[in-house]
Amino acid sequence: MNVFIIGLGLIGGSMAIDIKKTNPSVKMFGVDADKSHVEQALDLGIIDEGAEMIDLTAADVVIVSIPVNAAIKVVPEVLDIVNDETLVFDVGSTKSLICSEVASHPKRRNFLATHPIAGTEFSGPTAAIADLFKGKTNIVCEVEKTAFKLQERAMKIFYELGMRIRYMEPKAHDKHIAYVSHLSHISSFMLGKTVIEKEKNERDIFDMAGSGFESTVRLAKSSPAMWTPIFEHNKENVIETLEEYINNLQRFKELMEQDNFSSIYEEMQNTNRIKEILAGISIKTN
Amino acid sequence: MNVFIIGLGLIGGSMAIDIKKTNPSVKMFGVDADKSHVEQALDLGIIDEGAEMIDLTAADVVIVSIPVNAAIKVVPEVLDIVNDETLVFDVGSTKSLICSEVASHPKRRNFLATHPIAGTEFSGPTAAIADLFKGKTNIVCEVEKTAFKLQERAMKIFYELGMRIRYMEPKAHDKHIAYVSHLSHISSFMLGKTVIEKEKNERDIFDMAGSGFESTVRLAKSSPAMWTPIFEHNKENVIETLEEYINNLQRFKELMEQDNFSSIYEEMQNTNRIKEILAGISIKTN
Repeated sequence: MNVFIIGLGLIGGSMAIDIKKTNPSVKMFGVDADKSHVEQALDLGIIDEGAEMIDLTAADVVIVSIPVNAAIKVVPEVLDIVNDETLVFDVGSTKSLICSEVASHPKRRNFLATHPIAGTEFSGPTAAIADLFKGKTNIVCEVEKTAFKLQERAMKIFYELGMRIRYMEPKAHDKHIAYVSHLSHISSFMLGKTVIEKEKNERDIFDMAGSGFESTVRLAKSSPAMWTPIFEHNKENVIETLEEYINNLQRFKELMEQDNFSSIYEEMQNTNRIKEILAGISIKTN
Repeated sequence: MNVFIIGLGLIGGSMAIDIKKTNPSVKMFGVDADKSHVEQALDLGIIDEGAEMIDLTAADVVIVSIPVNAAIKVVPEVLDIVNDETLVFDVGSTKSLICSEVASHPKRRNFLATHPIAGTEFSGPTAAIADLFKGKTNIVCEVEKTAFKLQERAMKIFYELGMRIRYMEPKAHDKHIAYVSHLSHISSFMLGKTVIEKEKNERDIFDMAGSGFESTVRLAKSSPAMWTPIFEHNKENVIETLEEYINNLQRFKELMEQDNFSSIYEEMQNTNRIKEILAGISIKTN
């Protein structure tokens, strides 16, 4: 089986590692606009061979793992090139736009829209790691629009990666993911910004910041090239989450200004319920 | 040496474990308003004996590890009881108020104001763990107001716990810590609140939330009983940080509304510098 990874970053590279591990007979090809990424992926043994778009005619599976703004252009091009038996899936963090972009493509049935909820704050081929997807959720959209045989091929791959599948409509995906992923990133970036702006003398940050700060600003290390187009694609949902988040922060500030610390206590106590929710996540991922 | 821990929670309990480990001859006494905590600490072997305030006459060292609103009442009472050779230190997350409360106490020179930057999101005696303070920073305020011999006794303990010492004025401590600790907690609590409010069907959170969300809302598990008085004591600084954080989020939202995604990219790229800052923290704590 010939598997082509377009975009040799954290997600594409990690998929290549695990697919190769469970299917040693797979020949793994890498396509990347950045030629140094192809070289790195070859050096790291993530791919067997570098390739170009034109080589996709030989593909059994094509994984498009590039920023979402690039994916909406590249996926239709890939579908133009591949043969009728090829499975093409993307892994982007927004799903409505990609689904509408391919809606009337003659090879729509070769495409599956997916979003594996996995990652770290790092990027590029060197960030690729084994077992990244084990126990994680993969959200699959509009499954009924993909040819049944190719659904099966995809599910076998996801199963071997250790993923749980959840089916959702693209619009519902984009709405929920804005809350549980996109907003977290903005909250973290703006927290990092607020502290960096204030603490001109970085030694003060080094010395006083503990593991709590580290955990809260971890996502502020994420790649702007990946995240800017996500916010652009999911603009309306993200703005809605931001409005609600800002309102909650504003209310917290007003309670403090009014010395209403009993309500502050209640706000925190009510939110402590997140413990059980996070315990649910941990059960899932471990 | 008789060491008394007032408040057998995460910090007090963890100090007891490490002090006992490096000084097996220490007799460890536990005082807690919640008698079940004394029982738990005895069962866990964290303390050798339960005690009352009146027993503090026999103390060589008293560690006051209770919420900051309780500490400002209890520390002067402790100083009233202990003898002239006893070291008393607190571990609270705000320092201005405790320092002003004891400023004119006749036994001021027996007291040292400290803030070990260490912890987890858990609380109570069962949360106490060994090596919690290893490689962490302990901020010591107004060191010159503590008797030299008692400073030495305190530094020996902090050294044995594996801590680095940093000296600061209480006002500077409270201002900086608002940015690198207190704001992180509010950001996390309000993020948790925003998502819980929206996602009435918690299964959606379970299934779609990944490790990024988990990391960003981890601090929302923290104890309201500990954190409400911290926000109250540090009200002005915390409100200032909240204003700046809200302004940054507001600006991010406006850039999105204006479709100014090149500026959004820049905001994130500038904040990526947090990588180096966090690397600094990790070097320190590992």
